[in-house]
Amino acid sequence: MTLNEQQLAEIAAARAQTATTSRPTVPALETLLFEAMPVLDHGFVRVVDYMGDDAAIVQAARVSYGRGTRRVQEDAGLIRYLMRHRHSTPFEMCEIKYHVKLPIFVARQWIRHRTANVNEYSARYSILDREFYLPAPQHLAAQSVSNRQGRGEVLGTEDAARVLDLLRGDAMQTYDHYAEMLNEDESGAPRDPDRPGLARELARMNLTLNTYTQWYWKTDLHNLLHFLSLRADAHAQYEIRVYAEAMMQTVAAWVPLAYQAFRDYRLGAVTLSAQMLDVVRRMISGEAVVQPDSGLSKREWTELLGVLGREA
Amino acid sequence: MTLNEQQLAEIAAARAQTATTSRPTVPALETLLFEAMPVLDHGFVRVVDYMGDDAAIVQAARVSYGRGTRRVQEDAGLIRYLMRHRHSTPFEMCEIKYHVKLPIFVARQWIRHRTANVNEYSARYSILDREFYLPAPQHLAAQSVSNRQGRGEVLGTEDAARVLDLLRGDAMQTYDHYAEMLNEDESGAPRDPDRPGLARELARMNLTLNTYTQWYWKTDLHNLLHFLSLRADAHAQYEIRVYAEAMMQTVAAWVPLAYQAFRDYRLGAVTLSAQMLDVVRRMISGEAVVQPDSGLSKREWTELLGVLGREA
Amino acid sequence: MTLNEQQLAEIAAARAQTATTSRPTVPALETLLFEAMPVLDHGFVRVVDYMGDDAAIVQAARVSYGRGTRRVQEDAGLIRYLMRHRHSTPFEMCEIKYHVKLPIFVARQWIRHRTANVNEYSARYSILDREFYLPAPQHLAAQSVSNRQGRGEVLGTEDAARVLDLLRGDAMQTYDHYAEMLNEDESGAPRDPDRPGLARELARMNLTLNTYTQWYWKTDLHNLLHFLSLRADAHAQYEIRVYAEAMMQTVAAWVPLAYQAFRDYRLGAVTLSAQMLDVVRRMISGEAVVQPDSGLSKREWTELLGVLGREA
Amino acid sequence: MTLNEQQLAEIAAARAQTATTSRPTVPALETLLFEAMPVLDHGFVRVVDYMGDDAAIVQAARVSYGRGTRRVQEDAGLIRYLMRHRHSTPFEMCEIKYHVKLPIFVARQWIRHRTANVNEYSARYSILDREFYLPAPQHLAAQSVSNRQGRGEVLGTEDAARVLDLLRGDAMQTYDHYAEMLNEDESGAPRDPDRPGLARELARMNLTLNTYTQWYWKTDLHNLLHFLSLRADAHAQYEIRVYAEAMMQTVAAWVPLAYQAFRDYRLGAVTLSAQMLDVVRRMISGEAVVQPDSGLSKREWTELLGVLGREA
Repeated sequence: MTLNEQQLAEIAAARAQTATTSRPTVPALETLLFEAMPVLDHGFVRVVDYMGDDAAIVQAARVSYGRGTRRVQEDAGLIRYLMRHRHSTPFEMCEIKYHVKLPIFVARQWIRHRTANVNEYSARYSILDREFYLPAPQHLAAQSVSNRQGRGEVLGTEDAARVLDLLRGDAMQTYDHYAEMLNEDESGAPRDPDRPGLARELARMNLTLNTYTQWYWKTDLHNLLHFLSLRADAHAQYEIRVYAEAMMQTVAAWVPLAYQAFRDYRLGAVTLSAQMLDVVRRMISGEAVVQPDSGLSKREWTELLGVLGREA
Repeated sequence: MTLNEQQLAEIAAARAQTATTSRPTVPALETLLFEAMPVLDHGFVRVVDYMGDDAAIVQAARVSYGRGTRRVQEDAGLIRYLMRHRHSTPFEMCEIKYHVKLPIFVARQWIRHRTANVNEYSARYSILDREFYLPAPQHLAAQSVSNRQGRGEVLGTEDAARVLDLLRGDAMQTYDHYAEMLNEDESGAPRDPDRPGLARELARMNLTLNTYTQWYWKTDLHNLLHFLSLRADAHAQYEIRVYAEAMMQTVAAWVPLAYQAFRDYRLGAVTLSAQMLDVVRRMISGEAVVQPDSGLSKREWTELLGVLGREA
Repeated sequence: MTLNEQQLAEIAAARAQTATTSRPTVPALETLLFEAMPVLDHGFVRVVDYMGDDAAIVQAARVSYGRGTRRVQEDAGLIRYLMRHRHSTPFEMCEIKYHVKLPIFVARQWIRHRTANVNEYSARYSILDREFYLPAPQHLAAQSVSNRQGRGEVLGTEDAARVLDLLRGDAMQTYDHYAEMLNEDESGAPRDPDRPGLARELARMNLTLNTYTQWYWKTDLHNLLHFLSLRADAHAQYEIRVYAEAMMQTVAAWVPLAYQAFRDYRLGAVTLSAQMLDVVRRMISGEAVVQPDSGLSKREWTELLGVLGREA
Repeated sequence: MTLNEQQLAEIAAARAQTATTSRPTVPALETLLFEAMPVLDHGFVRVVDYMGDDAAIVQAARVSYGRGTRRVQEDAGLIRYLMRHRHSTPFEMCEIKYHVKLPIFVARQWIRHRTANVNEYSARYSILDREFYLPAPQHLAAQSVSNRQGRGEVLGTEDAARVLDLLRGDAMQTYDHYAEMLNEDESGAPRDPDRPGLARELARMNLTLNTYTQWYWKTDLHNLLHFLSLRADAHAQYEIRVYAEAMMQTVAAWVPLAYQAFRDYRLGAVTLSAQMLDVVRRMISGEAVVQPDSGLSKREWTELLGVLGREA
């Protein structure tokens, strides 16, 4: 992560500025507020604002006049009930806003989550920084042979070095050509006064997809948890999963009751189809079920054994 | 508006509870926080939480590290530019949450605004209060003859009294039958122990559409302004317009720069079609345009003269 | 269901009108097109248009140039895979439009599903018909004692008759007063020429929540299946469940492969929390787990035994 | 535009396949169906399905049992009224689905329109083609000096040639390295059997933003018109505007009445702020208004004169 002095000063200034409010306030999240949590080689996630807390979920579910909370035990029970039965609207009553710096190819996955508000740094209007993602060698892996959208074996030292050389070289070269086409120095004046600069909206097309961009991203807790259930999952691409994992920490600090319910009933949960459930019932009755008479395809059978922690 | 003692005490307690935060805080809105602003005979609107301020709009538009603001003058100019050119995403970065008590027929109009989060008091789960909207006599009007979805002349004293008798009588009778079918006292015990109570989810169907309901309603500033542009408009039904007007006050306190830009460029603005613009240009050139050679239909011609403040 | 002659003639005319198209067309759904499927005493659901078919799901998942389908077997496998792994976007590529007539209290539940397009008959603009829902006696039930938002025992004959008298009497009286306040005959002329009619937007507030309304409702297959998973569920209120069940038939005719996958992986599926899964694994290993050492609350333990079809 | 033989054959097959339907059908759009309309150097837009027509807008606005249409004249009047007064829900009742091939930097702008359904070709799962956008020389322009997000003068021959050399060279080199890292031939077998291929989800990060991607994109008519009002506008970037212009043709063929209303009341319309309207009224009254006493900022004054077609 590379924040320059001015950025660090602005963050420090925002942290130093305090006010008194009657709104629900979460001290554990206040301590994280504005801080950039490093992700990948140059990226970060930082919470820039939030609305609501665990009690706000309870308050909305009860349509209360006051804070809505009773005893912590009772609130926890209600939140767990709401999570278990997928009553999503009370969770929509909490909102959070992040500032995220991320490679463009990650941003393209992320933006597919439509129920959010986004302001992205505009490369039509401004000039992007010379920063691009280069995977750490241990994250350079071969195409998976079993999963068409996954990774397999980590590359050997030499193969990894060759890949990194290509990625680094191309990112540097395309960025340098981008800068050359723009022909602007930091003040906006032409570097070479004898030729015009290419419009920013055109020059940007020369950048590679590992170039970093940044945005403000705001969403409600229900949609955030949905995002995290997909992106903090083991099947998510590593480069977006690390962002999701950083955000998990902010959720744990912000709404600890909802976070625990989410871990128990969503992240750690499994869904069994009607046929799978039937197999499970037979197994519990002591029957030795085998795939051919399970009613499951081979693929589903393997998935079920995996869920049950049994050898295939 | 009828808040009972417990509700008032809960509101007072919420107001009394303060905390220190580094989040953007708006003192003018803090003074309104949690207070129920009366609307209609038993309704209210109250702000229960908010996120962001004018500076947050600027911050998102600039994708800043700090608060993003420069001089007030510059911020105002940017906000006005964004409003004028309908750059809506920075306004989505502010969020507000209301608790609203409103007649069901108003709630049915309101809920058509889909980009919001809602938790409504459940008449499937709980029992509704014996409160229904009865218009003040000056708001009882005849069907408009010119506008199929509007009101015309205010009713005379006698006609108004007759209408109010019908509305009051039917609302009281249907509520009493609702209570009779439910057969529950305040503790939930049967009032008449010799017969069963009807399920709440069924009994509610006997209530009239002026019965009050309530909900938590949360939305972002962009969608709120869109709601207000439609519902604070002179063509909106009076019974929803008064809610919009109360909310306008909260927006003025919350984001004064955005509010003024909204008044100038949205609420007070007019849209001219290509043909209308052509007529305006001819008029400015001193031409005495008349409807038959205006290229406008009679209806549009009348609309245009209205906009220009000229006699038909 | 009460369609008048003109309505029946209009439906027949729409059915008779045919055209040639290159769009995906589903003969089984064409036979249902425009027909009103009766629901409750005066309601109906009818399909008025649709876009896409099972192959369109496959086509979008593959981003194909042509129809995208290979062998039926392969398409079914892909659709089942997408459903099992909650890849929802290909299902969004099919769209369906319904015309629904339904009681207002059902409409209020239904409208909470926001990802849909709706045009409702406007009681601000037009006059509602004198039609209201009266439950059949076997659907009049007492409040459930175990479930705060459910029904328990069916009412006895006498109790049911008393409830129906109240519901019918109040609905008829409030409608008659609505008509009296409106003071319009069918041609729009005043019934009593000596007094003004009350504006429609006001008079409607006197109607009860079992009055029928109607709307056009359009959504995509993903959101429709989500709607059906909640509303065709045993926990849904009977009066909306019957609409969901009628719509299930239209889905079965329209996209039979997606429908079967939905039945297997969504409707008939169960979700086990991390703790529940642990209990299941222990049971399969032959352990006799009891609630106190299960890690589950009593409520969750009961839910799990229910899922597994075992005695509590 | 480069479609290979198999793609052309698939399109031809889809066009040849016809069926009889009772759904609303638009012959003018049927003739365009499936055809790829070329956009930019390798892109296209093609309509792959649609639902509804002009009459469906009328039908929904009237909540009709049949097709809802009366005389064409009356339908046109209603559609124009709905468009003028921004009654958007009836336009949501028509739906259209496109298959689009477009450069990634254009896709990144486009995806910001959230109210749509999208399935994009997955570079995590599949390998992208070796196709990238190279602007025609007359579209290579310098950065605008007056507009931070626009283009100014077209580059001279030599400067354009230099830019194209850079763009072409970098795109080819980065693609070749992408292919080298993947190390797969067309059958998926390794090109160089002595080293592993890099996972597709990683290798793609080396591609430049002018690489072509493709997607299925489906939206309703209201949201499509909103998209077109922004993207067919003169201020939109050329590279997305040409897609919008191609789509305008499909709208003209599909819903000619709505299209004409859109041109008159949206595309060709202007919005005047309260202050601008005041100036226009004074001008029509013959007053010679000058900026300092107009109540407008210099920027707004210039905008107004532009709208009125007058010299600054």
